[in-house]
Amino acid sequence: MRTTLDFLLHDWLRVAELTARPRHAEHSAETFAQVLDMCERIAREKYAPFNRLVDTEEPRVVAGPEGDRVVLPQATHEAWHAYAASGMLAAAQDYELGGMQLPYTVEAAGNAFFAKASVSIGAGMLTSGNANLLLAHGTPRQREVFAAAEFAGRWSGTMCLSEPQAGSSLSDIATRAEPDGADFERDPLGPRYRLRGHKMWISAGEHELTENIVHLVLAKIPGPEGRLVAGTRGISLFVVPKKLVDADGRLTGERNDVALAGLNHKCGWRGTSNTLLNFGEGRFRPGGAAGAIGYLVGSPGEGLRCMFHMMNEARIAIGMCAAMLGMAGFEASLEYARQRPQGRPLGPQGKDAAQPQVPIVEHADVKRMLLAQKAYAEGALALELYCAR
Amino acid sequence: MRTTLDFLLHDWLRVAELTARPRHAEHSAETFAQVLDMCERIAREKYAPFNRLVDTEEPRVVAGPEGDRVVLPQATHEAWHAYAASGMLAAAQDYELGGMQLPYTVEAAGNAFFAKASVSIGAGMLTSGNANLLLAHGTPRQREVFAAAEFAGRWSGTMCLSEPQAGSSLSDIATRAEPDGADFERDPLGPRYRLRGHKMWISAGEHELTENIVHLVLAKIPGPEGRLVAGTRGISLFVVPKKLVDADGRLTGERNDVALAGLNHKCGWRGTSNTLLNFGEGRFRPGGAAGAIGYLVGSPGEGLRCMFHMMNEARIAIGMCAAMLGMAGFEASLEYARQRPQGRPLGPQGKDAAQPQVPIVEHADVKRMLLAQKAYAEGALALELYCAR
Repeated sequence: MRTTLDFLLHDWLRVAELTARPRHAEHSAETFAQVLDMCERIAREKYAPFNRLVDTEEPRVVAGPEGDRVVLPQATHEAWHAYAASGMLAAAQDYELGGMQLPYTVEAAGNAFFAKASVSIGAGMLTSGNANLLLAHGTPRQREVFAAAEFAGRWSGTMCLSEPQAGSSLSDIATRAEPDGADFERDPLGPRYRLRGHKMWISAGEHELTENIVHLVLAKIPGPEGRLVAGTRGISLFVVPKKLVDADGRLTGERNDVALAGLNHKCGWRGTSNTLLNFGEGRFRPGGAAGAIGYLVGSPGEGLRCMFHMMNEARIAIGMCAAMLGMAGFEASLEYARQRPQGRPLGPQGKDAAQPQVPIVEHADVKRMLLAQKAYAEGALALELYCAR
Repeated sequence: MRTTLDFLLHDWLRVAELTARPRHAEHSAETFAQVLDMCERIAREKYAPFNRLVDTEEPRVVAGPEGDRVVLPQATHEAWHAYAASGMLAAAQDYELGGMQLPYTVEAAGNAFFAKASVSIGAGMLTSGNANLLLAHGTPRQREVFAAAEFAGRWSGTMCLSEPQAGSSLSDIATRAEPDGADFERDPLGPRYRLRGHKMWISAGEHELTENIVHLVLAKIPGPEGRLVAGTRGISLFVVPKKLVDADGRLTGERNDVALAGLNHKCGWRGTSNTLLNFGEGRFRPGGAAGAIGYLVGSPGEGLRCMFHMMNEARIAIGMCAAMLGMAGFEASLEYARQRPQGRPLGPQGKDAAQPQVPIVEHADVKRMLLAQKAYAEGALALELYCAR
């Protein structure tokens, strides 16, 4: 795939020309190649060898004194730490945020290696997307506390939209967010609310890869009579950490009232935990009371609009994941077709059973199918990089 | 599905008219209905409740003093015994063979219930097909010994074609069959050979559902110089019992040299064991020597032609299985679509979020998809029954 990537990035998209822009002035074709080399190497060493493992050893729940824990294979921890240490979580961000100011096209190309090697082992996409939303819609303090820790890979991120009774119908979410005390508007981390509700299909909703998890949660603030506004107009967005933090981002030692209710078992994408989370049921009692503490992001009623920042980024990243599943399928098919002997070519006298069999890659219809796979996978990759450029 | 079956069988295919033929003279619309009632009931009680179980508890190997055993869930044993006791293994056969002389269309309709309830729990299709091949190509003694025990459900059957180095390329099979002793042509069960080779993807190749297993095996008889004839012309067919039997079909107590080399793990169809079998490697030594004992069926070199009798029957039965997987999918989809609320209809003022959600079966595009499922599944069922008529 590297040859294809180099062709797309340089011969077609001419990414080196981007270094003429001030933002990317310190980059060159060489630094781009170094990033791709690094991604290719980490994906080969830390992702690909464990692709099968994370499919057979799916996340499991172990009861513990501080609530249910999710246990992941050791390889998943090592893959996460290698990815975080690579700087790819913040690759396109400003230098002052710990980023590389890499063109997004090159970041996307680098991430392609990880998706192809093992699509579900990492949760980097959600963490970057979560932090990027906070850069766009959070307060300066929310950016410094939450986004910075995510870009550094110390904390990871989730997106909490669906509920058991409301799948893609977000107008029907029932999670409530109520002001937490008379001084709720004076919290340095943002207006403070207590959330109560259930969130379904939350990827990476519970695990121990990072010391904290940053949930971005859609909820409704009740009106004066305590009723929720129907439709999407009533939706607001909150940042809800798994463990509470102070205004400088230090863990206070107190667990927020976010509890794992169960894991969803999926046919694929089994390297990441997929969870049902209970917010505010009283499993933990921060500040002596039930209710998950969350800080408003953006304005009340603007939650869905803000969340679309992350949703759109996730859609693009998932598109790359799908393209790379196709690419991995093509590569596996090609390797198999070159090894598997079956049948013989038709000659003027028909087939000669005394001749050895040929590898199936020599069958015209197998060639056609392989070329179709290659065209779909490389075409999808090209589309992703073109949009990213 | 019963309403659909009754419509297809009676209003469209007019199966009751078949009772005018002498072969089916003792039947009537009532006896046909009784057979369908029975199949529907056994499928509901013995198959459907365990469809999930046989998918999660796939066959496993346990070492034993008489070689590796395959352990299946208790439910699989009970499903087999209920199916065998129903008489469906021989439903279309002559009364004197223990059959019902049922029209094949009605037999196929009855079997549809089992395939829909749990497609992989049973191995009846292979057992009937194996016995039917012996009726067409076996000697009278082979029919009395092997086919009769299969129709009664005491023994089960397999078809052994593929080899690890030769998938669908049967010209390349390397299993050898050599005459077993100077008197090899005088065995009452048929000309006796010793087989040596490996057979891959053998469904129900090892299990303890029945007291014996009847393997129908393709192999090549070497020419005078010990070389195998290239191509399919050199293929002969042998009946190779797992346990040796005498001329009256009684177990001799001696195990034939057929050994389980391993189980194949499949994505689906996990209720039946799928095996790699070693023939004649010396794991067992019948008559004091290595080599699996097999009896020629049909003439030397006619093996593939004979085997096509069973292959064609299996193809038709697999077609019904595929149609019934589609039908089961349709029924599950319909049930879910009637229960799952999501979204609201568009009115003149758009959607009214204050109204309750509607079940998704009311969405026009969900209706369209359900109707497409129904059309495919019922159309495939109709095609099967039409061909069977």
